[in-house]
Amino acid sequence: MARSLTSTPKADGFRLPGEFERKAGCWLGWPERPDVWRNGGKPAQQVWVQIASAIAESEPVTICASSSQYANARRLLPAHIRVVEMTCNDTWFRDSGPCFVVNDATGEVRGVDFEFNAYGGLDGGLYYPWDKDDQIAQKILEIERFDRYRVPLIAELGGIQADGQGSILTTEQCLLNRNRNAELGKSEVTKRLTDYLGAEQVIWLPRGCKFDETDGHVDDLACFVRPGEVVLQWTDERDDPQWEIYQEAYDILRSTRDARGRELIVHKLAQPRLLEWTAQEAAGLDQNDGTHLRQAGTRICASYINYYAGNSVIVLPLFGDANDRVAQATLAELFPRHRIIGIENSREILLGGGNVACITMPQYAAATHG
Amino acid sequence: MARSLTSTPKADGFRLPGEFERKAGCWLGWPERPDVWRNGGKPAQQVWVQIASAIAESEPVTICASSSQYANARRLLPAHIRVVEMTCNDTWFRDSGPCFVVNDATGEVRGVDFEFNAYGGLDGGLYYPWDKDDQIAQKILEIERFDRYRVPLIAELGGIQADGQGSILTTEQCLLNRNRNAELGKSEVTKRLTDYLGAEQVIWLPRGCKFDETDGHVDDLACFVRPGEVVLQWTDERDDPQWEIYQEAYDILRSTRDARGRELIVHKLAQPRLLEWTAQEAAGLDQNDGTHLRQAGTRICASYINYYAGNSVIVLPLFGDANDRVAQATLAELFPRHRIIGIENSREILLGGGNVACITMPQYAAATHG
Repeated sequence: MARSLTSTPKADGFRLPGEFERKAGCWLGWPERPDVWRNGGKPAQQVWVQIASAIAESEPVTICASSSQYANARRLLPAHIRVVEMTCNDTWFRDSGPCFVVNDATGEVRGVDFEFNAYGGLDGGLYYPWDKDDQIAQKILEIERFDRYRVPLIAELGGIQADGQGSILTTEQCLLNRNRNAELGKSEVTKRLTDYLGAEQVIWLPRGCKFDETDGHVDDLACFVRPGEVVLQWTDERDDPQWEIYQEAYDILRSTRDARGRELIVHKLAQPRLLEWTAQEAAGLDQNDGTHLRQAGTRICASYINYYAGNSVIVLPLFGDANDRVAQATLAELFPRHRIIGIENSREILLGGGNVACITMPQYAAATHG
Repeated sequence: MARSLTSTPKADGFRLPGEFERKAGCWLGWPERPDVWRNGGKPAQQVWVQIASAIAESEPVTICASSSQYANARRLLPAHIRVVEMTCNDTWFRDSGPCFVVNDATGEVRGVDFEFNAYGGLDGGLYYPWDKDDQIAQKILEIERFDRYRVPLIAELGGIQADGQGSILTTEQCLLNRNRNAELGKSEVTKRLTDYLGAEQVIWLPRGCKFDETDGHVDDLACFVRPGEVVLQWTDERDDPQWEIYQEAYDILRSTRDARGRELIVHKLAQPRLLEWTAQEAAGLDQNDGTHLRQAGTRICASYINYYAGNSVIVLPLFGDANDRVAQATLAELFPRHRIIGIENSREILLGGGNVACITMPQYAAATHG
């Protein structure tokens, strides 16, 4: 029985694990809306199959496809990937799915369900409506019969990183935006984040990468690779539009002690070059009201930080960039026990507005059980 | 991982249990189509909540509701009933859902997925299209990660009763109908039924009740209450339109030995009087092409046989009939360890074309395991 709980995960002994911790599965949607995914979503669906198959080498994968796409998704995906029916407004499960929190003492897993407003609602959000996306967390939790905490906070897990040991990393640009939770104030947002993610401390960065449409999600900028260690996207070129943002994040991370009192080690990951929409790509989109405009020359925030860390694989977006090889080597060093699987055509996902991390919601397992 | 299997349940050691055997859960849809369910489905939804709640006293219940009805169903149903999203053409899960077969040696459960054509396809079927209903079994089995056998036979479990010990009871009117499997012939249909339901013998009755829209589903006429014992709807009035059908079934059942060589004990259950649609009820329907016509005076096949047998409750349709009390007493005698829960407003379900058994798919548990 899946209950709706009014306590908080922290009070109940639950915590959000770090992405490097053990997962029992992974959840994704399925791209189809023709105003976001070019050419009717068919190129993106092909890459989706690659990404889902790569993750399925590591842990069980479930794809949530709409009724109209169910048969097509079922046929395109290999049989060992589960397909369930779910209507979504779009496919960013890192943001719309449930954050799985764990109780290491009991082995229990529950879900945290933030309010979702499609990255800013009517004040700069990316699409309208978003009601189906706001139901995704509850639907997934009911399928798995996990209890659910509904959080009085507008947030997406793509804007939040955890070390699993009490520290949360996020950006003010996103969570304190006037289109999210500005009216609550920083200290109340800090309290709700730590209460609902079972943490002690929030490390606030001022902003995320430029050209990221999400109001500065941290998952294009930096993430924990283990407690006490962060990987940060980087460039040494001072005239790069991201340079100042990387430098600012680096300075804050290096001068911060985490919830356990550790100084943070910061690994630099060389960025790919900035990408832009081509006219041909833009011509593949339905032009609708209510969706974020993309046209020839629209800049795209590409990031190697937006990888998926599975139990045994790292699924890494590649861009046909000179730094692809560098990113693969850096992540191989940071995750010596993982196999690095590069996704060559990840540009198709990027055109939709995110990448491998954005479309995946890891389902964590408690540390000591199952 | 849910596999699609090409062997047969019988070859793999699986069998369809009798409805009186142990269940791990129960699956239902959710009524909404306004050409089948009067007044936008609201009266039927109220009764649905009663039925689901009654069954949930006995075993876990899952309701499958469409995307547009998800929030409404979730709010109307108590929290301990699971709601998952599923698009359906209509709501007869006994017929469109998977038949759960069990392997008592291993404890494993699998699903049998008959072809579904909405009770006759374009040759007298009840609605068009039926493609979503034909996906229900696969969707449920993927949610539960159960392996699936797709059967080359058009059939509905409402037209089939099992004793769990090798005997299957069905009607020629349904399974050998030209709109189902007439071209296969009786012996081939017998073979497929026994192969896919893990049985030895099919007991063929010529026909089901009159005014039943399904081409004579046996689940309005007779069912096993335990191995060797059948309950049969009955009347002693020779001018009743059903009299000859009951008599014919009685004679066949009494002269048949089952797969274990037993003579069958036949319990008679006094029928309710014949019901008819009122003009006011018919005015509550959308009048669409492609749906079975209902109008004032359309006769309705009411039956007490269409009950649901849970682990600890019998959920019994009542009709405001003098025989309601008799039916409750008869079933209390036949199921002395069960609590009989009568559904007073079951007429609302009957107007849609079936009753408690028709809208429920029991999920069996293997006899010797968990």
